[in-house]
Amino acid sequence: MSEFAVDPVIQSLTFKLADWPLSRVFLYNDSRYHWGLLVPRRPGAIEMCDLNPQDQVQLMTEIVKLSGLIRALPGVEKLNVGNLGNMVPQLHVHVIGRRKGDPAWPGPVWGHSDPAPWPSPADAPLSNAVSNS
Amino acid sequence: MSEFAVDPVIQSLTFKLADWPLSRVFLYNDSRYHWGLLVPRRPGAIEMCDLNPQDQVQLMTEIVKLSGLIRALPGVEKLNVGNLGNMVPQLHVHVIGRRKGDPAWPGPVWGHSDPAPWPSPADAPLSNAVSNS
Repeated sequence: MSEFAVDPVIQSLTFKLADWPLSRVFLYNDSRYHWGLLVPRRPGAIEMCDLNPQDQVQLMTEIVKLSGLIRALPGVEKLNVGNLGNMVPQLHVHVIGRRKGDPAWPGPVWGHSDPAPWPSPADAPLSNAVSNS
Repeated sequence: MSEFAVDPVIQSLTFKLADWPLSRVFLYNDSRYHWGLLVPRRPGAIEMCDLNPQDQVQLMTEIVKLSGLIRALPGVEKLNVGNLGNMVPQLHVHVIGRRKGDPAWPGPVWGHSDPAPWPSPADAPLSNAVSNS
């Protein structure tokens, strides 16, 4: 099995927050949303069904944990959870806080418009929430 | 706890295939994709994190099962799994087979364009795959 490495496109769009038991946790660097990303540290995984059953359960646990952190942030009215990978095959799951009237509402955020990076990603509300979790 | 009922918008866009242990399974009635929908039979659930931990694990099991059925269908190159609910809050998870060059590729299918219904949804490849599973 090859070593785990995060796709360079994912790296360029994110800020690393933590390593949870299965996934590397990132802030997706778009200040218009509270947007997290889970990248399971399993080389070669593309779909959730590529993970073994134990990892699948752990991924759900981590989706739920990240969901709870994002749901508690100011202004979040709805969560969007998605695993697409049409542009970047490496398995990654988005968890995004949405609110009525956000730039892409009510459509999906993916492919909607260019991100507006946080001035200091380390200080984003989601970064603090993950640090304190 | 109120009785389980499927949102009328979901009903209008889908064809019922089965009841799995947690979810009602639907064909999303758009013949341009192999597109399934899981609706957990839990009244009031909006987010995956609203489910209890046992149901969360079962939902992952059902996502993986539906993923496996869709991945095996002709032409499917990538899966998209998403729980958005911006238009219809009732918890529902999309599992969609994508291919390079499909109408929305590489963007998300949600909100892209009006569905092109199957002439006979009961005979769609995904309907047969779920029946035989």
